[in-house]
Amino acid sequence: MSVTATAPSKSAVKPVRMFVGGEFVDSKSTRRGPVYNPSIGEQIAECPFCTAAEVDAAVKNAHAAFPAWRDTPVVERARVMFRLVTLLEKNAESIARLISLEHGKTHEESVGSVRRGIEMVEYACSIPTLTMGDTMHNIAVDVDCETYFHPLGVCVGITPFNFPFMVPLWMAPIAITCGNTFVLKPSEKVPLSAMRLAELFAEAGLPPGVFNVVHGDKEAVDALLTHPHVQAVSFVGSTPIAKYIYETSIKHGKRCQANGGAKNHILVLPDADMDKAVGALQASAFGCSGQRCMAGSLAVAIGSAGDPLVEKLSATAAKLKVGRTDIGSDAQMGPVVTKQHLDSLLTNIDKGVKEGAKLARDGRGVKVPDAPNGFYLGPTVFDHVAPQMHVSQAELFGPVLSVTRAASLDEAIELTNKSPYGNGAVIYTRDGHAAREFKHRAGAGMIGVNVGVPAPMAMFPFTGVKGSFFGDLHIQGKEGIMFYTQQRMILSRWHPDSHAGEFVTTRG
Amino acid sequence: MSVTATAPSKSAVKPVRMFVGGEFVDSKSTRRGPVYNPSIGEQIAECPFCTAAEVDAAVKNAHAAFPAWRDTPVVERARVMFRLVTLLEKNAESIARLISLEHGKTHEESVGSVRRGIEMVEYACSIPTLTMGDTMHNIAVDVDCETYFHPLGVCVGITPFNFPFMVPLWMAPIAITCGNTFVLKPSEKVPLSAMRLAELFAEAGLPPGVFNVVHGDKEAVDALLTHPHVQAVSFVGSTPIAKYIYETSIKHGKRCQANGGAKNHILVLPDADMDKAVGALQASAFGCSGQRCMAGSLAVAIGSAGDPLVEKLSATAAKLKVGRTDIGSDAQMGPVVTKQHLDSLLTNIDKGVKEGAKLARDGRGVKVPDAPNGFYLGPTVFDHVAPQMHVSQAELFGPVLSVTRAASLDEAIELTNKSPYGNGAVIYTRDGHAAREFKHRAGAGMIGVNVGVPAPMAMFPFTGVKGSFFGDLHIQGKEGIMFYTQQRMILSRWHPDSHAGEFVTTRG
Amino acid sequence: MSVTATAPSKSAVKPVRMFVGGEFVDSKSTRRGPVYNPSIGEQIAECPFCTAAEVDAAVKNAHAAFPAWRDTPVVERARVMFRLVTLLEKNAESIARLISLEHGKTHEESVGSVRRGIEMVEYACSIPTLTMGDTMHNIAVDVDCETYFHPLGVCVGITPFNFPFMVPLWMAPIAITCGNTFVLKPSEKVPLSAMRLAELFAEAGLPPGVFNVVHGDKEAVDALLTHPHVQAVSFVGSTPIAKYIYETSIKHGKRCQANGGAKNHILVLPDADMDKAVGALQASAFGCSGQRCMAGSLAVAIGSAGDPLVEKLSATAAKLKVGRTDIGSDAQMGPVVTKQHLDSLLTNIDKGVKEGAKLARDGRGVKVPDAPNGFYLGPTVFDHVAPQMHVSQAELFGPVLSVTRAASLDEAIELTNKSPYGNGAVIYTRDGHAAREFKHRAGAGMIGVNVGVPAPMAMFPFTGVKGSFFGDLHIQGKEGIMFYTQQRMILSRWHPDSHAGEFVTTRG
Amino acid sequence: MSVTATAPSKSAVKPVRMFVGGEFVDSKSTRRGPVYNPSIGEQIAECPFCTAAEVDAAVKNAHAAFPAWRDTPVVERARVMFRLVTLLEKNAESIARLISLEHGKTHEESVGSVRRGIEMVEYACSIPTLTMGDTMHNIAVDVDCETYFHPLGVCVGITPFNFPFMVPLWMAPIAITCGNTFVLKPSEKVPLSAMRLAELFAEAGLPPGVFNVVHGDKEAVDALLTHPHVQAVSFVGSTPIAKYIYETSIKHGKRCQANGGAKNHILVLPDADMDKAVGALQASAFGCSGQRCMAGSLAVAIGSAGDPLVEKLSATAAKLKVGRTDIGSDAQMGPVVTKQHLDSLLTNIDKGVKEGAKLARDGRGVKVPDAPNGFYLGPTVFDHVAPQMHVSQAELFGPVLSVTRAASLDEAIELTNKSPYGNGAVIYTRDGHAAREFKHRAGAGMIGVNVGVPAPMAMFPFTGVKGSFFGDLHIQGKEGIMFYTQQRMILSRWHPDSHAGEFVTTRG
Repeated sequence: MSVTATAPSKSAVKPVRMFVGGEFVDSKSTRRGPVYNPSIGEQIAECPFCTAAEVDAAVKNAHAAFPAWRDTPVVERARVMFRLVTLLEKNAESIARLISLEHGKTHEESVGSVRRGIEMVEYACSIPTLTMGDTMHNIAVDVDCETYFHPLGVCVGITPFNFPFMVPLWMAPIAITCGNTFVLKPSEKVPLSAMRLAELFAEAGLPPGVFNVVHGDKEAVDALLTHPHVQAVSFVGSTPIAKYIYETSIKHGKRCQANGGAKNHILVLPDADMDKAVGALQASAFGCSGQRCMAGSLAVAIGSAGDPLVEKLSATAAKLKVGRTDIGSDAQMGPVVTKQHLDSLLTNIDKGVKEGAKLARDGRGVKVPDAPNGFYLGPTVFDHVAPQMHVSQAELFGPVLSVTRAASLDEAIELTNKSPYGNGAVIYTRDGHAAREFKHRAGAGMIGVNVGVPAPMAMFPFTGVKGSFFGDLHIQGKEGIMFYTQQRMILSRWHPDSHAGEFVTTRG
Repeated sequence: MSVTATAPSKSAVKPVRMFVGGEFVDSKSTRRGPVYNPSIGEQIAECPFCTAAEVDAAVKNAHAAFPAWRDTPVVERARVMFRLVTLLEKNAESIARLISLEHGKTHEESVGSVRRGIEMVEYACSIPTLTMGDTMHNIAVDVDCETYFHPLGVCVGITPFNFPFMVPLWMAPIAITCGNTFVLKPSEKVPLSAMRLAELFAEAGLPPGVFNVVHGDKEAVDALLTHPHVQAVSFVGSTPIAKYIYETSIKHGKRCQANGGAKNHILVLPDADMDKAVGALQASAFGCSGQRCMAGSLAVAIGSAGDPLVEKLSATAAKLKVGRTDIGSDAQMGPVVTKQHLDSLLTNIDKGVKEGAKLARDGRGVKVPDAPNGFYLGPTVFDHVAPQMHVSQAELFGPVLSVTRAASLDEAIELTNKSPYGNGAVIYTRDGHAAREFKHRAGAGMIGVNVGVPAPMAMFPFTGVKGSFFGDLHIQGKEGIMFYTQQRMILSRWHPDSHAGEFVTTRG
Repeated sequence: MSVTATAPSKSAVKPVRMFVGGEFVDSKSTRRGPVYNPSIGEQIAECPFCTAAEVDAAVKNAHAAFPAWRDTPVVERARVMFRLVTLLEKNAESIARLISLEHGKTHEESVGSVRRGIEMVEYACSIPTLTMGDTMHNIAVDVDCETYFHPLGVCVGITPFNFPFMVPLWMAPIAITCGNTFVLKPSEKVPLSAMRLAELFAEAGLPPGVFNVVHGDKEAVDALLTHPHVQAVSFVGSTPIAKYIYETSIKHGKRCQANGGAKNHILVLPDADMDKAVGALQASAFGCSGQRCMAGSLAVAIGSAGDPLVEKLSATAAKLKVGRTDIGSDAQMGPVVTKQHLDSLLTNIDKGVKEGAKLARDGRGVKVPDAPNGFYLGPTVFDHVAPQMHVSQAELFGPVLSVTRAASLDEAIELTNKSPYGNGAVIYTRDGHAAREFKHRAGAGMIGVNVGVPAPMAMFPFTGVKGSFFGDLHIQGKEGIMFYTQQRMILSRWHPDSHAGEFVTTRG
Repeated sequence: MSVTATAPSKSAVKPVRMFVGGEFVDSKSTRRGPVYNPSIGEQIAECPFCTAAEVDAAVKNAHAAFPAWRDTPVVERARVMFRLVTLLEKNAESIARLISLEHGKTHEESVGSVRRGIEMVEYACSIPTLTMGDTMHNIAVDVDCETYFHPLGVCVGITPFNFPFMVPLWMAPIAITCGNTFVLKPSEKVPLSAMRLAELFAEAGLPPGVFNVVHGDKEAVDALLTHPHVQAVSFVGSTPIAKYIYETSIKHGKRCQANGGAKNHILVLPDADMDKAVGALQASAFGCSGQRCMAGSLAVAIGSAGDPLVEKLSATAAKLKVGRTDIGSDAQMGPVVTKQHLDSLLTNIDKGVKEGAKLARDGRGVKVPDAPNGFYLGPTVFDHVAPQMHVSQAELFGPVLSVTRAASLDEAIELTNKSPYGNGAVIYTRDGHAAREFKHRAGAGMIGVNVGVPAPMAMFPFTGVKGSFFGDLHIQGKEGIMFYTQQRMILSRWHPDSHAGEFVTTRG
């Protein structure tokens, strides 16, 4: 497949290839799915659903490449990442266009996602110093103790459609620099960005077999999760699938870290800088058309904050320009990823209306004149959402913001903590005490204080809890590195050779 | 139950109590099992098999105690451990006698196990400084990032018969000092030591409900593993049960670390200090009557080391004094824990003989005149054990040492790495290169270089791999602390209040 | 000397002894100084000013004790500290009475200072895990790297009069647990508490020569600073002496960390909880009669906060009960340490009045009827202090609080940053943005946000800057441990022995 | 000056410029010194000895650039280093030629030194994660503690002639990425490489004023050491100068780390792989013509190792090809840096002969036909060197290897520990016990086990002791980062606002 960042004509629809053992190879699978340009609703590629045998071949390649890669000094392994940083910087624009093409987010959002991905590769360059073991000299008389961190073997990444390039970079650079080899299975809806990544890894000098890409659906996933050579699985996706991936991996003796969905609450206190809060909410709820596990999809307006907040939110939502993102445009929000996903969102909005939520801003009628078949939904705001409503509970994964009202900070924190999810939770206030209470008591893993999307930078872990994460060790940060390594302990003592004159040592 | 360290008369057999919410309470369960003094083969107590309802009550007590304990500053929590250290030092002798009474290990071994337990409590006193989170100031312009480590909630320990006092101390002090509350289910064969620990925790000032003890078998275990309030499970036992505990815990949304069995290989090179090697092998294979997951149960004699090694081993094994450990005696090895376990060992020795292993030293005829009904087996040495034999493959968990022969270090390492287990592996040599090769290539988590039992001290993790461990984060060391905590991340930004004159700050 | 906590009669005035090589020994020095009970102004002991020869003997004892102590495993060394914690807890009340007797602070303050000292000893118990070195396996092909932290040798502590028991505990437990031996020279004004510490170290089982005490003035100090066996010097005192100690130590090849004086600014914004701010200011400015390097001696009232702040401060200062602290009493503030110091404070107050500062509350007339000769000064508050005044610039080290006024937070931060000192700086506000600006921009090492005395707990460093600290590595926390250790690095490679058949290993 | 790596004609001798505030500027100083091409003994440039006023201007530029650079997020600062890595990789060959031109080391050695320099820049890319501070939540009830690491301000590097490009990279990338600004004063003998570094920093996008270069001798150095804006000084050079730099810096209130000279001992046991030992000794003693503070200049042959060692050493030394390094050649060793240095070496060899050391290999007659005026000395080996001889004690800094004999490992360790220096110490043996004894007891900071030049990689500190280092925190590794930062501590508490209804929170 020729990876290209310009919208191809219909005749260009070709099957996406796999990347195995350093080669781009065609899948023989007869099962395939379409890849769309969601901006115009046209198919641009065809993604093979790899067979178990094809997955097995990829894993075996990764397994064969492991010993030599493991024994390559970690500073050498990190140098591949230094080169990858340079290549990513150089190609950021064209990669971003490719992401926008297959996913639909705006060019600015795509560039941002490449940048966050680059941060992960930069962080991987710290691994030589972050995988040091410990020593204790003379732990008992004449006995020394030391530990080392070893890689695991073949690691697997299964990644979602919403960040086609960034999420693979959450995983592969860390796993690989730690000395593991890797098999990536990107979302079958957006496989092109992952193939571009394979090209760049090769260009950066990564040896064949260390990074591999297969495609597919449950058959490929199950082949990965049950393969005896696979040692670890990283996953990002929805909660039910995350739970399945986690339990299946565990049952087959692998480590697993599985990120699920979220319903992130954003509390707004009456003393907040209201313009800043509205700006943050809009970016948080409608960025990437709401298709983010860190989207702030539920605003909790406390006390008198409610009316001005909803009024300003509706006004700014109405002004947000929705449009094509596959070509240069001034669109501030793009389409959602597929027609099915759009339909599901429309159904959920209907449900909200039926449940009695007030539609403060209806995005359903949005028009994009030059792309009548694109998968568009305008920014939508529900007000007076009650806690038990579906639009309050469920992760919709689209540009739909629910606003609920609470009488006090206590009530709002309680509401936050009842959510089955636990990725992000945010407070907007000027008050130091309110912020500290929230930090201390809010039951989410990532807390924002006047920060709309509290996603950590690469060197801090992505610390979801409850239904948002399954596992012990999170992606990113030092936890992410620990996930891809195992510690070994060595106790040493040496006995003197009583026969050897020249070696004789006598202690004072 | 009155905990006592002197052998009680038959009439003293009373049911062991539970410890729940700070109180010693009787179990209403009708299902019970005997607790023996294995030195003389007599029952000394009766252990209730708690019902699911009793387990639920204990968990609920722990759950209720959690918020106040979590909000107690960590330095205050650690102070309970400082007091516990003092109490354990003061009571070490009497605790050791109780351990020897119900388990059968020698007094010296029991004292040693108390000392290793004390080391864990000492290590728990470091938790205030070991649970620090990270900060990055100005991670982006005017944005600060910080993390904290929070406790999980109710944690559970399920512990084996071979170290009735030490293994609970691997878990509870760490979990509790991290801010969790704890429910312990000790082995139903040796519940008395755990009850003594409950008394000492209370005496050290631990608030009611923070540490609890229940007893039982699979019913109690399953009630713990599936209880919605339980957040984490620590287990030490045999491999099949470890796997069951791990998978069941994971399926019910808990963290789990589960230690299984082992078959630890001890390589002896011809240049080794042979007397030191034999001394280490004897201590490693026959210590605690071989009932240790760190027992060196398989010696691999390399090249010319074989004959002198077996000769010396047999001679020293013959001299080892086996006897009662429930009273003051000069016994160097005690009984095994139960009659059933003794029978199983005898069956395995028969199997070894049938398979063609050479019985270099037969411990079956051992006599302990003053205790004819004790569960005794003398030190037993098999020579010329072939890799496929049962006595080479299986964890026997008794004083049975198999010796196999290898032509070279390479062959011996290969043999080591074929084991389905991966706790310890040891090399005896004077050669620096041989030791480094072994450290680098042996596929076990804990490596000994001229150290017979490479069990780490408390501040280093107990890093089993393969069939010897299920989980991401090992018991002991920094991994053990990470297991009992979760990291949360906070991003903060503060906006200036443009209306407030006295607050106005203008940056240069 | 018989250490006693009850006021002795005049005839009980005896010379204080030294503690050298595990023995309490008399000084032969003819130069001596008085030790007072400042509550009643009577001499209670006589402190020898040790000769250079006596100092030399103490250092040589410490030097002789070093090798065996260094080679004692760190976990064993830490166990002395575990026992010391227990002894300190048990004796806290009587130690506190002794501190109050010779220093004059209230019993509550003395107990608090013992508690802070205990925290240091608790922290020292973490040293086994905090002095781990690093490893990197296969840093180059077949080359391994590791580091260890070694102790330095003989370390010296020179401590001030204001915390006779606590400041020695900032130093000795850390130095000693790291494997060093130690010579303490306490303030010649308050040597009794240090002798009590020597008794407790011995009782805890510390081997002879590891901890030693000498007394004296510049002669003894210079003998320590220039002694060839001394490796490191820790000092707490005034800025000019700190600078002298630091430069002299460095010139003679020792490490040095030297804490000097301070003038800590406490900013109060108009939105602050005014009662909390006043309470904090009073405790901060008048606690220990103002004789603290963390005393908040300069309040900066911002905007409208000024008048209510001074009004409330003056009212509460007037109510503070001043009295004897050598006997059970309800005094809330005690005397200052000597007559000379009292006189110097009175002179400084006169100077303030002459410079035009407004004496909002005059403490000079304070009466303590049952102790007419005690060294008392009541709480004193200056208002409208201008930045260039002596009472604004100088560290007075007594119960004198200066209040200055600033128009904005910016102006107040600028004022704070002009101070030649840099220990603490505090802000009282409810506003998150003001606090963050202050944290980011205030040029002091220890920042308080609504905390009046921002002295860190033992596991965090005491991070003074500018004129308040000379050195690279602060006392307390991980920096304190680094100060007392040096890192060594080892690179290892092992070559195979091509002649040795049984050792031959062939890599795949 | 046009930096060029080909030997310029005599007429090309031009003054070297300074780099200040982002500009290359001419010095007005009338005092200047010659820069030679030591391969042919001709002058190639003229180095100005900057005036105190010029130094002041450079420091002021660095001071002015500090606030903006400090407030640039650390991840942005690190990105300059990522770009610098790429530029260094791209220009490594031409930089190496320039180094060889002005210093005289072989092209291979120059390339090696650039590679070690690159490793430092790679390590600087880890600084975002290595400068994290610590947190403790709820350290007391409702009180939180956190620390941050701040940069210091203007830092200075004063670097030696032997590694004109690498040593500046030990300092500037770390200091700068930590947020400091930097003034480099390279050796006046080899200023060209430093100017090339300035070009590359600028090309990498470092803002003007962050990195600056001045030149000169004691006047410039003193101007730096005493400048009020300078906060820290890093130095590498000889021991007497290191001591002067250290004491002067300290006296003027700066941090300082000053590396001095060395006399590194290499012990060879009779069981060592003799060919490997000889190869290592040759590389260690004659590499860079012996002008290295990690040069192995004193071999200690133990027992029977002596004769074969010296025989093989002399034979291989005789075969080492000495020649020009300013042009492509097959020379294995180049000239020393100046005529004066050559003369000093010849004097020292005479002294050795007079003292009675046996000249096993005399390098004085070496001929380089195409460069009769080059500063050449061939590899020289003294045997039977006695401990008190000058060639045993002094750092000669040339290709002169002294061999001494010892009867046992104990004697050899004692000899090693008597050296006034303490950089490296090496043992060659196959014996694990001998190596462990050496690691434990040898009084040098960097230990090699079968590694001839135990210089650590960038992420480990360069841990010289005794006369080889003055300071607390070494260059390289985490110590290097700590040197360039200071920790600040913040304690926070927030009081609830009792008047604000919507904020009211009530704890359970």
